[in-house]
This record gives sequence, structure tokens and C-alpha cells, in this order.
Amino acid sequence: MPLAAIESLETPIPVVDLDRLDANLARMARYAAAHRLALRPHVKTHKAPRVARAQLAAGAVGLTCATPRELEVMATVAPPSLLLAYPPIGAGRIRRLMTLPPEVPLRVALDSPEAVAALAAAARDHDRTVAVLVEVDLGMGRVGVGSPEALVDLARRVAATSPLRFEGVAFYPGHLRDTTESSESGWQRLCTDLGARLEALDRAGLAPATVSGGSTPTAWRSHELLGLNEMRPGTYVYNDRATVVAGAAGRDDCALTVLATVVSTAVAGQVVVDAGTKSLGREPRGGDGDWGFGELLDRPEVRVRAMSEEHGILDLSTTSWRPRVGDRVRIIPNHVCIVTHLFDEVAGVRGDAVVERWAVAARGRG
Amino acid sequence: MPLAAIESLETPIPVVDLDRLDANLARMARYAAAHRLALRPHVKTHKAPRVARAQLAAGAVGLTCATPRELEVMATVAPPSLLLAYPPIGAGRIRRLMTLPPEVPLRVALDSPEAVAALAAAARDHDRTVAVLVEVDLGMGRVGVGSPEALVDLARRVAATSPLRFEGVAFYPGHLRDTTESSESGWQRLCTDLGARLEALDRAGLAPATVSGGSTPTAWRSHELLGLNEMRPGTYVYNDRATVVAGAAGRDDCALTVLATVVSTAVAGQVVVDAGTKSLGREPRGGDGDWGFGELLDRPEVRVRAMSEEHGILDLSTTSWRPRVGDRVRIIPNHVCIVTHLFDEVAGVRGDAVVERWAVAARGRG
Repeated sequence: MPLAAIESLETPIPVVDLDRLDANLARMARYAAAHRLALRPHVKTHKAPRVARAQLAAGAVGLTCATPRELEVMATVAPPSLLLAYPPIGAGRIRRLMTLPPEVPLRVALDSPEAVAALAAAARDHDRTVAVLVEVDLGMGRVGVGSPEALVDLARRVAATSPLRFEGVAFYPGHLRDTTESSESGWQRLCTDLGARLEALDRAGLAPATVSGGSTPTAWRSHELLGLNEMRPGTYVYNDRATVVAGAAGRDDCALTVLATVVSTAVAGQVVVDAGTKSLGREPRGGDGDWGFGELLDRPEVRVRAMSEEHGILDLSTTSWRPRVGDRVRIIPNHVCIVTHLFDEVAGVRGDAVVERWAVAARGRG
Repeated sequence: MPLAAIESLETPIPVVDLDRLDANLARMARYAAAHRLALRPHVKTHKAPRVARAQLAAGAVGLTCATPRELEVMATVAPPSLLLAYPPIGAGRIRRLMTLPPEVPLRVALDSPEAVAALAAAARDHDRTVAVLVEVDLGMGRVGVGSPEALVDLARRVAATSPLRFEGVAFYPGHLRDTTESSESGWQRLCTDLGARLEALDRAGLAPATVSGGSTPTAWRSHELLGLNEMRPGTYVYNDRATVVAGAAGRDDCALTVLATVVSTAVAGQVVVDAGTKSLGREPRGGDGDWGFGELLDRPEVRVRAMSEEHGILDLSTTSWRPRVGDRVRIIPNHVCIVTHLFDEVAGVRGDAVVERWAVAARGRG
């Protein structure tokens, strides 16, 4: 039973096309099942129990989180386990991790002896065991130990530190945004580098139970990574302009748009909508040199050329469309994970009917 | 009485140096008073009743808002009046404007006949009078009517439309970010263009009671704008890297920093802190071609070189400083208004003591 027509929504607001969301969830679940990969989606993209439940219902083995708030909110959906894919550093972060409901099994990815020591001390204090993945850097240059030797060293330290349990390896190939030909050499290097690390662990008698990697842009090639048995895509639930540019989704797979209203047509050659950086973020589109901070769902030729905090400027030089004050548009954002973080609520639609509203409950710091 | 030491705060969190905030508030209030300019600060920068009250206590004649949520929250601090400096377009936006407490006088800036009609109809329905400022475009190319003739036309329409009252003119010179020599010609054009519009109104018998303009970068030259009698700076309460580049504040006037923790030192030449785009936004610094998404309060040579959603990468190539996992830093952001919009709470400190915490109550859409 529809709550309302989409036309009744106050703007700006993120609108999720539930048919597209359902299809995105099913497609990734099918891929993971077909390749016998465990699917542990990252919740950063949606931050909503509503979507997490759908991911678990579709077969996810657990959820991946980056923040204490995400962990606390996602613990309420009874996941089989939670992975903190973020260094457990800082007294507050560790305390909130340890005070999650005891029935939720915890996994943590880390890359330093300091993290091992702090996590182990807290786990002892709270009488918990924690499965640890050692984070490895496979080219992104963000977090993660570098060499196979450094990996073995840290894995050995974890294995020797009760009540931690060495579970395996995690990585994030965020530097590979393009899964088409141009990134083929990068992809081959990723395969080789992962292989060298898994071999080193094997030789050291530390064969990992879990080898966890992936991102949405590389998700569909996860099965080519020898030894990988878990994937953690996030953006696939909604997709965005960057995912489309990366070749990991089609334009029709973009499930979240920002509904906005034309508020001014006073300046020639453009119109102003009520979605600016405080609704869309100021994120680049991706690797193809193409421009704009978003594009219209129904008019791909129309882009957000510039923004202020509450103003988005639609360029009319590429279109014969001449909107009027009060008209509404739906904008596909460049990077949807940021949009989620900017709003407290999302509307779910089927066609033009608003059939659900849900809270972005894990937004913020809690 | 301090609540706690700054070291006890969980990161990431915005921290406001209250001594600097107090000084920023006092300096702008002194400037406005010295030049007999009404000060109507824009609340978008802080979105907090705590700061709005301090602005009113320092002599502000009212507050400026961009969103319905800002209006609703700011109505609770008993302002002498509220200005919606945003086109009143969309049923939800107008309904929320009209249902503000009746004792709060309302002003609205607008730039279209559609806005006049919609606002007048709603004002009649709600038995309210609304003072209207016609928004003029003086070079920014965002909103606002262009020519003096278009201004007179729209002002006449407002004056003829009960229960609206023609109050005057509003503009935002956001295209002038640099108040030093290089923008002198732009500044002179602004003065000339404003003068031409005020003359046209005078000739039409529509002399404006209020001429409202300004931004933080141009704030300190407001008295040079003949006819201007109201200023609406926002960023001056906190300042940021962009304000400093614009020459409108010194580095020591930056009152808000993001407190963050070093969570990884695994990759050589850099460290990772727990403030990324979901804490700092991805905002450019400003006009000088300088780089980075933020810089350290205590180490200006250290910048945020790159970001992921929850990761900020500090470049160590410019410093001999070698931080350790668990160390804390305070980051001056490029654009502080975005940071405010990303957090629900702020800590107020004097020196190293946390003496207050306040909600960013007007964040979000409400």
C-alpha cells in the first residue's frame, strides 16, 4: 500500500528505486553463490538496517562496518558476524567494539602491532574472543602491511596473542576502479601479489581460513583471484555514476537518486535545484575525465555543473529541456556512499509510489 | 568546570576553540557596529542554537537561514527576526516556513514571480505578513534577477501583492573570494552594479529599507558598498583554510578543527587518520592553487593529501614529524560549513579542557 506519491516528498531527499535495489542485491548474491564466495557486504553505502536485513536474507554471511556506530546499529539485525574493516585504534573505538552484544561474533582487520596489543588487552578485559584478519596493502597505499614478510610477522603475532585468533587476510583494491582492459596490468599484479602473500603464510604454517577482499568495481572478477573466499562490496546496492564509469554496473542499475526541486531559473543557460554539496557531496565522477557532480535520471545529458552548499546548478547548454520553477528532478550522484551519510532518512519507491521510508540509522558517530 | 580533557574525546569529532569563537564573534560585531551595519549572520556554518544565541547576544539583528530545518531550530532561540535566504519554492518548504511560531517576524529573499505567487498565497492562508527581499545577481551567476529593470519589475510585483511587503534587496557576492588586490576590479564592478540597482529602485519609488549582502570573504569591506545596511556573513564564526586564503581571517582565527587519531602507519611516507570525506568533505582550499584537504593545527606543514570515506592520508614528505599509531591531531578543514553538516555534535574547548558539548541541532532535513 503506497504511503504517498513521489510528488508529495519534500526535497531534497534520497529516493531508492526498490525494484533496482532488489535486483542489485539478487545479482551480487547470485554471483557470490555461483563462485562459492562468502558475501560480507560493507554497510557504509546504506547505513540502514532495512538494507542490511535484505542482504542477510539474500545469503550474506555477515556484515562489514567501518565505524562504531555502524557496528552498534548493525548488531541489532542479528548478523551471523560483524567485521570491523578498520584499524581498532583509540580507546573509544575499542570500547564500543567490545561492548557489542556478546552473541555477535566479532572479526577485526588490522595492520599494526599496536592494534594487536590494544585489541587483545580489551578482549581479555571483556572476556571475548576476536577473529583477526591481517590487512595487506596490495597497491592502494592506504592501510595494510606491505611485504609478505611483514604479513607473516604480524599474523604470527596475532596467532600468539590470546584471546585473538588469526583468521586470515583482508585487502581492499580501491586503486583498481576500472575493470575493463586499461586496468588489466593492475589486475594481474593484484593476482600475483595476493598469491605471493598466501604462499608466504602457507610456508609459515599460517594458512588463512578467510581471504577477504573486493570492492564494487572489482566485484565481478573476484572469482579470478586465486585463494579469495570472501568478498565485501558496498556500493553495489545502489550504484552511482562512478560505478557505472568503472564498468561494474549499468546506468539502469543506479537505485538511489536525489530528488530535488528547481528553485530558480533567473540566470540564463542554467537552473538551480535545491541539492548542493550538502546533499550530493563534492565527489569526482571517476576515471574518464567526464564532468559534473551528478546527472539527471531521466535526462542523462543534463549534469550538475557547479554547486554551493544548498544549490546545484544544472547546465542547460547540452539540452533543449527548459524546466520551470517548481519542477522536480532526480539526480544520480557521483558517489552514493557520501549521499547516504548526508541524510537521516531515505524514501523507497516502486514506480512513482512511495512505499517505504527508512532511517539511515548508522549515519553519524552515535 | 571542565567536563573532561580533550584527550578523552572519541574521534573523529569537531572541536571548537571557544576563545577563538568568542573573539571571532566579537570582532564581527564590532565591525558591524562601527559601520552602523545590521548584522544578520547566516547559521549554515554552525547550525547550533548555542552559537546563534551568542551571535544575538553580541548584537545581531536576526538570523539568516537556508533550510526549513535551520528556520525551525533557530526559531527556538527567540530571534528578533528570521531571514530565509533561499527561494521559497516547493510546498513543503513553504508550509514549514509558514508554520514557524507566529511571533517570529519572517523575511524571505526570492527571485521569481512564481515565488511571489506561492509565498503570497501561503501567507494569506496562514494570516501572516512576510517581508520580501528581491534577490539580485551581482556577478555570481547562481540565483537573483539580472538587470535593474528586472529588479524593479519584481519589486513592483512584490509591493502590489498583499500580504507581502517589499523590504528591499539581497545579494551574495560569493564569486569574490579574494578581498586583496587581485579582485579589485571585481569589487569595483560590484559597487557599481549595486549602485545602479539602488538608483533604479529609487527612480521607481521603491527605495529599499534593507540592502542586505555580504559573505565572510568580503565582510570587512562591507562599509565600502554604498547603500548597504545589512551584512550576512556565516563562516566568520569558525573560519577555515579557504577563509584564510581569501584574506578574511588569520590562521589563528580558525576556531573549529577536526580531532582525529592516527590509525595506521603501515605505508611509508604517510600516516592514516580517522577523518576522511565523511568528516572533512572533499572541498577545495580556495584560489591559490595550494593543495590538500586540510592541514594540522599544530603543524601547518602537514596536510591531508588524499581521503577515503573514513581515512585521511597525512603526507609526511613535508615534515620531520613521525607520528605513531594512536597519536592525535587537529585538522583545520578547507570548508568548515561542510564539516558542521557532517556531525551531530561538537565539543567546545578552552585550552585542553572540554568545557561544553552542543548539538548541531539544525543539521539534516528535520
